[in-house]
Amino acid sequence: MTASPELDHDSFVRRHVGTDSDAQRHMLEVLGYESLDEMLRAAVPSTILLDDQDGAASSVPAGITEPAALAELRGLADRNTVRRSLIGLGYHGTHTPAVIQRNVLENPAWYTAYTPYQPEISQGRLEALLTFQTMICDLTGMDVSNASTLDESTSAAEALMLARRTAKRNGNVFLVDADALPATKAVLQGRADGLGIELREVDFRVDGAPEGEYFGALIQYPGASGRVWDPRDVIAEVKSTKAVAIVAADLLALTMLASPGSLGADVTVGTSQRFGIPLGFGGPHAGFVSVRKGLERQLPGRLVGVSRDADGNPAYRLSLQTREQHIRRDKATSSITTAQVLLAVMAAMYAVYHGPDGLTRIGRTVADRTATLADLLRRSGFELVSDSFFDTLEVRATGTAADLAASLGEAGFLVHTVGDDIVHLSLDETITEADLEAIAAAFAPHAPTPGQEIAAADSGAGWDGLVREDAFLRHPVFSSFRSETAMMRYLRRLSDRDFALDRGMIPLGSCTMKLNAATEMAGITWSEFNGIHPFAPREDVEGYLELIGQLEGWLTDLTGYDTVSLQPNAGSQGEFAGLLAIRAYHDSRGESSRDVCLVPSSAHGTNAASAVNAGLRVVVVASDARGNIDLDDLKQKIKDHGDELAAIMITYPSTHGVYEEEVRTVCQLVHDAGGQVYVDGANLNALLQVAKPGEFGGDVSHLNLHKTFCIPHGGGGPGVGPVGAKAHLAPFLPGHPAMQKPEHAVVGAGELVHGGAPVSEAPYGSPSILPITWTYIRLMGPDGLRHATASAVLAANYIARRLSEAFDILYTGENGLVAHECIVDLRPFTDRTGITVDDVAKRLIDYGFHAPTMSFPVAGTLMVEPTESEDLAEIDRFVDAMLMIAKEADVVLAGTWPAEDNPLVNAPHTAASIATGEWTHPYSREVAVYPGSWTAVEDDSVHDSAQMRIQSKYWPPVRRIDQAYGDRNLIPVWPVD
Amino acid sequence: MTASPELDHDSFVRRHVGTDSDAQRHMLEVLGYESLDEMLRAAVPSTILLDDQDGAASSVPAGITEPAALAELRGLADRNTVRRSLIGLGYHGTHTPAVIQRNVLENPAWYTAYTPYQPEISQGRLEALLTFQTMICDLTGMDVSNASTLDESTSAAEALMLARRTAKRNGNVFLVDADALPATKAVLQGRADGLGIELREVDFRVDGAPEGEYFGALIQYPGASGRVWDPRDVIAEVKSTKAVAIVAADLLALTMLASPGSLGADVTVGTSQRFGIPLGFGGPHAGFVSVRKGLERQLPGRLVGVSRDADGNPAYRLSLQTREQHIRRDKATSSITTAQVLLAVMAAMYAVYHGPDGLTRIGRTVADRTATLADLLRRSGFELVSDSFFDTLEVRATGTAADLAASLGEAGFLVHTVGDDIVHLSLDETITEADLEAIAAAFAPHAPTPGQEIAAADSGAGWDGLVREDAFLRHPVFSSFRSETAMMRYLRRLSDRDFALDRGMIPLGSCTMKLNAATEMAGITWSEFNGIHPFAPREDVEGYLELIGQLEGWLTDLTGYDTVSLQPNAGSQGEFAGLLAIRAYHDSRGESSRDVCLVPSSAHGTNAASAVNAGLRVVVVASDARGNIDLDDLKQKIKDHGDELAAIMITYPSTHGVYEEEVRTVCQLVHDAGGQVYVDGANLNALLQVAKPGEFGGDVSHLNLHKTFCIPHGGGGPGVGPVGAKAHLAPFLPGHPAMQKPEHAVVGAGELVHGGAPVSEAPYGSPSILPITWTYIRLMGPDGLRHATASAVLAANYIARRLSEAFDILYTGENGLVAHECIVDLRPFTDRTGITVDDVAKRLIDYGFHAPTMSFPVAGTLMVEPTESEDLAEIDRFVDAMLMIAKEADVVLAGTWPAEDNPLVNAPHTAASIATGEWTHPYSREVAVYPGSWTAVEDDSVHDSAQMRIQSKYWPPVRRIDQAYGDRNLIPVWPVD
Repeated sequence: MTASPELDHDSFVRRHVGTDSDAQRHMLEVLGYESLDEMLRAAVPSTILLDDQDGAASSVPAGITEPAALAELRGLADRNTVRRSLIGLGYHGTHTPAVIQRNVLENPAWYTAYTPYQPEISQGRLEALLTFQTMICDLTGMDVSNASTLDESTSAAEALMLARRTAKRNGNVFLVDADALPATKAVLQGRADGLGIELREVDFRVDGAPEGEYFGALIQYPGASGRVWDPRDVIAEVKSTKAVAIVAADLLALTMLASPGSLGADVTVGTSQRFGIPLGFGGPHAGFVSVRKGLERQLPGRLVGVSRDADGNPAYRLSLQTREQHIRRDKATSSITTAQVLLAVMAAMYAVYHGPDGLTRIGRTVADRTATLADLLRRSGFELVSDSFFDTLEVRATGTAADLAASLGEAGFLVHTVGDDIVHLSLDETITEADLEAIAAAFAPHAPTPGQEIAAADSGAGWDGLVREDAFLRHPVFSSFRSETAMMRYLRRLSDRDFALDRGMIPLGSCTMKLNAATEMAGITWSEFNGIHPFAPREDVEGYLELIGQLEGWLTDLTGYDTVSLQPNAGSQGEFAGLLAIRAYHDSRGESSRDVCLVPSSAHGTNAASAVNAGLRVVVVASDARGNIDLDDLKQKIKDHGDELAAIMITYPSTHGVYEEEVRTVCQLVHDAGGQVYVDGANLNALLQVAKPGEFGGDVSHLNLHKTFCIPHGGGGPGVGPVGAKAHLAPFLPGHPAMQKPEHAVVGAGELVHGGAPVSEAPYGSPSILPITWTYIRLMGPDGLRHATASAVLAANYIARRLSEAFDILYTGENGLVAHECIVDLRPFTDRTGITVDDVAKRLIDYGFHAPTMSFPVAGTLMVEPTESEDLAEIDRFVDAMLMIAKEADVVLAGTWPAEDNPLVNAPHTAASIATGEWTHPYSREVAVYPGSWTAVEDDSVHDSAQMRIQSKYWPPVRRIDQAYGDRNLIPVWPVD
Repeated sequence: MTASPELDHDSFVRRHVGTDSDAQRHMLEVLGYESLDEMLRAAVPSTILLDDQDGAASSVPAGITEPAALAELRGLADRNTVRRSLIGLGYHGTHTPAVIQRNVLENPAWYTAYTPYQPEISQGRLEALLTFQTMICDLTGMDVSNASTLDESTSAAEALMLARRTAKRNGNVFLVDADALPATKAVLQGRADGLGIELREVDFRVDGAPEGEYFGALIQYPGASGRVWDPRDVIAEVKSTKAVAIVAADLLALTMLASPGSLGADVTVGTSQRFGIPLGFGGPHAGFVSVRKGLERQLPGRLVGVSRDADGNPAYRLSLQTREQHIRRDKATSSITTAQVLLAVMAAMYAVYHGPDGLTRIGRTVADRTATLADLLRRSGFELVSDSFFDTLEVRATGTAADLAASLGEAGFLVHTVGDDIVHLSLDETITEADLEAIAAAFAPHAPTPGQEIAAADSGAGWDGLVREDAFLRHPVFSSFRSETAMMRYLRRLSDRDFALDRGMIPLGSCTMKLNAATEMAGITWSEFNGIHPFAPREDVEGYLELIGQLEGWLTDLTGYDTVSLQPNAGSQGEFAGLLAIRAYHDSRGESSRDVCLVPSSAHGTNAASAVNAGLRVVVVASDARGNIDLDDLKQKIKDHGDELAAIMITYPSTHGVYEEEVRTVCQLVHDAGGQVYVDGANLNALLQVAKPGEFGGDVSHLNLHKTFCIPHGGGGPGVGPVGAKAHLAPFLPGHPAMQKPEHAVVGAGELVHGGAPVSEAPYGSPSILPITWTYIRLMGPDGLRHATASAVLAANYIARRLSEAFDILYTGENGLVAHECIVDLRPFTDRTGITVDDVAKRLIDYGFHAPTMSFPVAGTLMVEPTESEDLAEIDRFVDAMLMIAKEADVVLAGTWPAEDNPLVNAPHTAASIATGEWTHPYSREVAVYPGSWTAVEDDSVHDSAQMRIQSKYWPPVRRIDQAYGDRNLIPVWPVD
């Protein structure tokens, strides 16, 4: 292929790439190149640039049409078998209300939104997240909840770290309940190992809290076995030793049982999966960490709070952002950037739709049916391990557990067995009375003493003192939208407040906000993908395993590595896993002393945070004047640390948006010193089929499927962060004790078990969204991916060139070219005019844009990444807006508009703000809200009137938000009364 | 049950009905009733009111939960078999672009919109329809196209009627091409019979136009057999006799072949189905009628044109509405009210997405592949009936056609056979090169002389002089949105301009804008329902037949009739079919002289139009002072017309929104005189499980599944208009020659063939949307339906009571109660204040509402129908807005605001209109656009600030539109150059 092919009419590539060949010809002309290939050869160091014929040689198959790809995906889906799951263990069947599925999960207004860092244009999802936080706080009885974490197990790991840094006593021991979820134990073990913490298992119910030093304890409530018991004495004991008492709780059970807060817990963790989020073979869904007052500044993840805008009206925003690891770097206390916003929104809306009475009825029904089933089984002579339960029973079946599981399987139900003698089963809201009969019938042939009569069970047996008595979800939001019509409208109103990709460009550097195609999204709502429990038996998930295997293979090929793990369910987890692999590799060679991680000064803040979490010491390497790694400083640092050198973490292209010339040299220097090279995959969208990290020197990388590979950002999650590595690291990549197929393909080594600890709760992370990436790659093929890469680089350079009329572009490579993004240096502009990065960002809202990335990686700059999906009209509209803003700043500079009263510092402007009777500003209302006819998003030629075009204006719902006010007056839940 | 049950938590009824029991208690208190039942007993005549225990006795099954209903529907779907269709005959496989499916077909912003009669809040779909019209005009080479008709066959029937009224010569003969679609011939025959026209079949290609008198001729181009031939001489001959030349053309073929306009046609009809609309077992899809200049005022259906708004900006609207039958009543020349807006939008967007080059490439590919297949078959020794074709081949297979069809069927392809000797097969854009091999392979074993070599076919063979040379789709809209990102945003921007049910209440009297639940919509995009050709063999459609049979049975039970036909694909067609059945019934009894149809003065305008189309004479019966049928006048009219009395058409409750007390008497009087009773089902939402037309005297009714039974209005279609009848009319209900199961259940008579002519093209009308209605009834059950009816009546009476504070309610029944809607008489108000119905309607837009029905059935009134789906907060918000408008009118009356400059006459106000520098009006900008804090749609208690609430404001994109200007300056297509 050439990089600018005459694409087939029905090729998806021409739908995914926004600029067609005419547009590209124009853009190349502006840049002075004849072809995309010529431009690539000028931008990318020849030492790493792949031959443009590479496509044919790739093991990634050639792209096919959308219907053909869907047919192939359907074939994979058909190889999965959806049986009703009674497995439980943290994952439960649930009914996603159709109104929520259609209007949130299947609606680009929700799923193509970015993380709400620009709160003025994110009020809809911020309100939904505030509702999520309120729901969590109410049910858990805690004071403050984060706005979601990745899953229950990683939430537990975050709580462990919170305990470690807040416990008022020393000690290096963390206690975990013997009856905690197995996956949680495994994730905690991995995290503890990384930090050198001793994890000690305790049977709290039997033994209470032990003597001795420990800084925290996690109690599962109800237990993973289903047992309901009163942990308040244990909690009190833990707290009496000044350790932190953490409860991992089931949200649905909390509708019936006393809240952890009322039992004295400091921290509660869990998942909202069973609030309407499909099983999805394990994910994604939204976990949470909630805390009692006093711990809120230690809370991991994001926290939404109410503040006020410039007009004094209430407005939502992310609070206490100074806690975030991209700011704290190696001082960070958590490695979470990705949350699970889309899933948190869905769970919150599930609670809004059902309300407190509805949730209670669901909880009671599940409890009652469980009691009924217990009755049925006891009448047949089965004995239960515990007579106190909410939704989960463990049934003694000496020697026949496997037979029973088989019988139930034939009846269409999956259960968990514990050894040979116990059958474990959990009910959920999808299990009907008729199902109970069917389940009991499957047990019947194996009954020890069929027909025996016993007293009827009571769903509250053993709950003495644990029956929930306090009200929850009392805010009107939980009782105002209970008809489908009201719910549909509420969802629409919320989404209308937000600016997502379905309205316009989101040119966020380093975030790769590209098209999330409808065809790519199709598979995720198929029951064959979303109806499967993560611990379903292998024979039920052959389609999934095939898809995962293919995807691992394709990602391996595209990155130049030898193997890939899809276990990490966020980029941060992938990064953490990759660094753990490096540490384990050194350990395996007897070089445990290697614990220094070099991090260039330009690196993502998360790099340093992950390194610390993986038990590494961070040493910063300087950048040279052009933003590249300073080779001399690197050599010096390598020399300084000698045998302590564990690794270097680099990003490529660099976070400065440049293809650094010397990347091969950098890798070689580190290798020569016995170190490993970690290549951050955040900028992989500039590399696919152009260069391969595994080829130019990387040993390990994480990728972001939600950046380069089209999983939508979901308003701030879900994400997937696979980790790819060379063969020597393969044994140390994250695995999972419950993987249906523990072996993974390793180039040149057949298949191998990834033997590291899991970094997410489910065996394959968040598999239900992998069909998105699978479909993207299948549609594009290797040639299409190269074309996308080249088109993204073209768009970034075109923007850099046009913007250089009025702004400085901070860094470029050898030929004056950037990679896939460019940094617009506003510092001289700010010095000159007083107009800040913030002002420009907010003014862009008036022009109908999401701001570029602000002050990263360099304070006082904007980083612009257009991706390949924007078309020329939108790109030009953005550049025109930026140039017009520069002119507006000149008006301020000229003194025509005062520094403290001009459309830039007053931005954004709401509709309400121009409806006021008096208008005292020195600029007009039109200038405020319709700055230039090119506010319009229509192609000029379609409509011949500016009036028609301004109809498309996005109206921000609030004015500029006061950040400090919200931090001083933290309101993290809906106030009641 | 009681009519106000404590509903199960998981009951769908509580999601569908907007008011919960608390709200209903409050509303009943306002009205002075203890219970819903008590209210019903007061509102509904005891002579017809059903016992409230009726639910248990119903053959409609009790309601079930949403997951359970979907599981049952899935079971039906699984009994269909989707094989690739090569049948053709007007229905072709097509790929619906995923971006269009997701963002239009699955998006309530599009599908819950109403017909764009309020153009200011319908600019998005009006723009899309203008694009549709442009697409049709460009491809057919005509000057003006309507904005869609029901399907190709009914479009042909409309063209027949157009020809009859415009032909410059007399004669009662209409010529139809022997090579026309069989379904078109059948529909034309039915329509001709109704009007006493002689339909004569002519083989135009062989015989040319015949001698003799005729007023019009329809030529199929290419022929149904696939033959491509040049009809221009025939067209010229037809026109030379002053008859109207109509061409039924295939849109995709027109990308390659000369347009009918260029060949001289006066009128072109056809369908846009193959432009992205799924087969759907026959429908719905969008047909069209396009005409040369000079005939535009005769065009049936709706026509979108560009006009201007009060600020002089361009704005779209429905043009020439005076042609509409609801205004012309018995002078109407067409019976169409329902169009197919949603499908027309999709087809237009398919053209926008592909553009002229894309469509041409699709057309060429289909033609080339057809030629390749022809080659392959000829090489095997098969002979083709015609060597000139576009996409359809007829293959001679003497005696083996059935065997060949069977072989192809085993290979997964369905074909049509003509007798024993011909296999007919059509290709489409979904047929790949690989498919061609598979098709040829299925032919191979039956080949007469396998392996024979012949010259390669040319896809243009026989097209001499017919190759298309002129450009089409030149307007930029067809080349501006070709990436998926651009398309997604364009669709969002269009839908953002419109006000649909997802934003707020649409209280349109007689239109029943109720919830279209997401669960109800789920099935329509399942391939097992939407991937099936209407002429698929019976063994492939058992699931469909079962669903249709169940639905016929349920509708029969709910209406009290003996049988139901789902053939009519719009209410107007159902009405027409019902009247034809009455005529045929009288004929069958030797009473052909019965041709008088009594129509009350309050009737829908369509009633009279349908009666005329069915060959009946309309005689109007007067209303009394209370709006009821004047019994004395009725008796007199019956006496006057004696043996000529064919029928009476009544609406119940009446179009005045009242349960008339004497309906049984009315029916009895007509029956006693030998007439039949037609009960218009438009208001069935006030009757379900409360009274049954078939029980209180109706012989036949049409229903509107898009009103009472939850098929969304789609912005003005699709609809389904089943006709239910007593057993004696069953043999005369519409059938179809190609029905897979011609027998229909008839209560007390087992099964019977519906023997009337078809009124729509496909055997079962628009079956792919029947799952919506099936699901609604399955979810609600008989008790839920009664509760819905009672709740709708409660809401209407509550509104009437509250509005009576400031307005007169025109008609009520015995106890001062209305039925499910109420007429607000603005005439005294207008007389007093000068503020018109129009002003109130447009001012409601500023308050965030769609106006109620205007000036129907009484000029100068608003008819309000809240349905059962609105919640109390929204109902109160509407009433408050109306009361506030009354107060605003008082300000005008007081002279504070001048009559010619006040917020009422200036309404609606756009955002742009308040951004202007100077504001010269005597009221403020805030009053213009934020009239009262209760503009807000949020529940008051959720947010504590008016600021938060005005964020939800709907902004109309244009100001009041000048209707007359648009009619004087008709612009029915996108202008180019």
